[in-house]
Amino acid sequence: MAERAALEELVKLQGERVRGLKQQKASAELIEEEVGKLLKLKAQLGPDESKQKFVLKTPKGTRDYSPRQMAVREKVFDVIIRCFKRHGAEVIDTPVFELKETLMGKYGEDSKLIYDLKDQGGELLSLRYDLTVPFARYLAMNKLTNIKRYHIAKVYRRDNPAMTRGRYREFYQCDFDIAGNFDPMIPDAECLKIMCEILSSLQIGDFLVKVNDRRILDGMFAICGVSDSKFRTICSSVDKLDKVSWEEVKNEMAVLLQTPAQAGEEPLGVGSVAAGGRYDGLVGMFDPKGRKVPCVGLSIGVERIFSIVEQRLEALEEKVRTTETQVLVASAQKKLLEERLKLVSELWDAGIKAELLYKKNPKLLNQLQYCEEAGIPLVAIIGEQELKDGVIKLRSVTSREEQEDLKTAQNRDFNFYYGYFIDYYWQKWPDTTPFTYKALGA
Amino acid sequence: MAERAALEELVKLQGERVRGLKQQKASAELIEEEVGKLLKLKAQLGPDESKQKFVLKTPKGTRDYSPRQMAVREKVFDVIIRCFKRHGAEVIDTPVFELKETLMGKYGEDSKLIYDLKDQGGELLSLRYDLTVPFARYLAMNKLTNIKRYHIAKVYRRDNPAMTRGRYREFYQCDFDIAGNFDPMIPDAECLKIMCEILSSLQIGDFLVKVNDRRILDGMFAICGVSDSKFRTICSSVDKLDKVSWEEVKNEMAVLLQTPAQAGEEPLGVGSVAAGGRYDGLVGMFDPKGRKVPCVGLSIGVERIFSIVEQRLEALEEKVRTTETQVLVASAQKKLLEERLKLVSELWDAGIKAELLYKKNPKLLNQLQYCEEAGIPLVAIIGEQELKDGVIKLRSVTSREEQEDLKTAQNRDFNFYYGYFIDYYWQKWPDTTPFTYKALGA
Repeated sequence: MAERAALEELVKLQGERVRGLKQQKASAELIEEEVGKLLKLKAQLGPDESKQKFVLKTPKGTRDYSPRQMAVREKVFDVIIRCFKRHGAEVIDTPVFELKETLMGKYGEDSKLIYDLKDQGGELLSLRYDLTVPFARYLAMNKLTNIKRYHIAKVYRRDNPAMTRGRYREFYQCDFDIAGNFDPMIPDAECLKIMCEILSSLQIGDFLVKVNDRRILDGMFAICGVSDSKFRTICSSVDKLDKVSWEEVKNEMAVLLQTPAQAGEEPLGVGSVAAGGRYDGLVGMFDPKGRKVPCVGLSIGVERIFSIVEQRLEALEEKVRTTETQVLVASAQKKLLEERLKLVSELWDAGIKAELLYKKNPKLLNQLQYCEEAGIPLVAIIGEQELKDGVIKLRSVTSREEQEDLKTAQNRDFNFYYGYFIDYYWQKWPDTTPFTYKALGA
Repeated sequence: MAERAALEELVKLQGERVRGLKQQKASAELIEEEVGKLLKLKAQLGPDESKQKFVLKTPKGTRDYSPRQMAVREKVFDVIIRCFKRHGAEVIDTPVFELKETLMGKYGEDSKLIYDLKDQGGELLSLRYDLTVPFARYLAMNKLTNIKRYHIAKVYRRDNPAMTRGRYREFYQCDFDIAGNFDPMIPDAECLKIMCEILSSLQIGDFLVKVNDRRILDGMFAICGVSDSKFRTICSSVDKLDKVSWEEVKNEMAVLLQTPAQAGEEPLGVGSVAAGGRYDGLVGMFDPKGRKVPCVGLSIGVERIFSIVEQRLEALEEKVRTTETQVLVASAQKKLLEERLKLVSELWDAGIKAELLYKKNPKLLNQLQYCEEAGIPLVAIIGEQELKDGVIKLRSVTSREEQEDLKTAQNRDFNFYYGYFIDYYWQKWPDTTPFTYKALGA
């Protein structure tokens, strides 16, 4: 570090020298010369490594998505979005944070799990806890009385995460809701239908749908002597039944109700992957005149579904493609970078998904290896002879079949031509894709 | 409000009565009776309207996306993602917040624009300011030396927003980056190519690409006598040239450098819609041993592009469909709810995008009107006669052409059958879609 300190001192001195010359209005040549020295010294110095005491991690309860995990996520979202669109839903989005007061009084005991932003002047803000309250705020703010929409976005809860079971502090919700005054049970029935369609399409196994009416629960609580003030808290406890054991919930309820817990046993559920219900009063809480907009909706617990699909992938030891590249532009000879760039550029313009290695003179073996690792099915090879003849050699990576009479420069309608030839061989060699997608249901 | 207070008192008293009976172990019948009264009183009470003093708005500098705005956003993202995939990119995602120390020391003067989360115990967190620093953290954390990835997500800056010009405190960034040791300028050239492909595909008019080398700027600053400590700050000022006038930037720089501002004039630019560059030192700042991973990338300024496309839509007074529904299941007669539900359900199972009105006995006129408003091109009509004959009447909403011989119950392969008939008429009546999409380039 003594060497670094010396270098830093030199940079400082040379900087002062340059500024001095500037102030003295020295000649441009002299200033330039000294600036050159300064830049060289800075280059020698490089970044300050003593400051690297970072903890390299994501915040507690959060995770990055790797390309492989993104492949799973996109597949799951695709199934869900296609279903929501099949049912004629529009889509909206809201900010990741809301005014703190928008969220206040909506979550009972669970309010303590809300992430607040630091007061840095201006409005007090909190990260959204779910997508339902922002939706109700959106309806009231825009005076909407009638909409069928879906919303897929991350929500935030300062909970104690069980990440192995797909529970995080930052996690996705996929919500579909129908707002409006309609004849009884018709939108409710559609919500159940959507839930079943999605869970069936995702092929995550058999599932059981439990249908209940909150008013039955209200009655049970009243009979049990739950006071109004403890109503929400007791509901929160009951909600935990899919996460912790009945024993724990029972004890929590007993403390809340100050009655001795009774013996009883229930099996631990495997966990819920979707939920939903009516919330006819929520929008009215936002409307200045308390006007109500009846709502019913559902939420897909995608994080658990991601976990299930990821585990299935692991179990099958399946390779998953994380890119969609159709063809690699390669060369067996040196000094053909410009020609490779020209060809790959023409392919991109023709809508073909194509890559090339970022090397001046890559070896053919390395180029073929890259294809095998990335699952790229086709290689377009050019060399001196091909360039002379105005052709391209196209090869299937797995079968090693080749096709050589693919004209390049002669053909006037380049874009159509390339689009056609790649698609043709894509079809002709159906097994060219080295990876399968069984676990993703594709 | 006096009435409300009286009702609240009654609910309280009745609650106490129920709890008292419970403690005295009164008969179940008696308790149930009193609970019933309690529930009735609560129903009369309804929600407390005096508490509705909410300001109904989104936080400063943020906005909701309406279904119409989402249609624009999805169209723009589709163009961008297709391009990124064409170039063989993988995709990753990172949490919306990072450890505060991950962001510290990366943004110079602009650090004051970072949103911090409130210290609620545990780690100190901040919302991400861009996608580049999280990417560098991801690379260092996973010891990756080689990846080509894109990342589309919202970032957060406590800036003074100019929302009419597409500048927000919460806004999307669409980043494409190539990390790794490659031969010079090849990845850099691909980044420029991608930028041009995207801006051309979006059809937002002519654009000018400015290419520069940071080392030229470094030299100019050194010649101008900018001290090391002011280097970042001066860069921030220069960065503002696309947002504020040269006059303002000049004054800011003059204050920083404590030299009198010189006269000079430059036209105000229309603003940048994409930017990019090299950052070879950033990953090394995270690596415990300072190992460098050279990176080059680009970022598409989608918020401005959203604004441009939205303005174009307004100017053309174009209707935009916000759903994709192909067919509405309708009836001219009463008491056919169950039959409508059965048909729409079969259509969903066949992959057809279908809706029905959530009414027991909707009028045919209302059903047709709904189609015209939502841009639904086809109506499948059932009535007593159709049900008896086992057929469906299919009508084009705009041309009013009808087709009646579409058998239902007789056909064994329902799903295939419906999929076929809707797709067939979708083709046969190509002008059935009432809305065009010119402004979206589709």
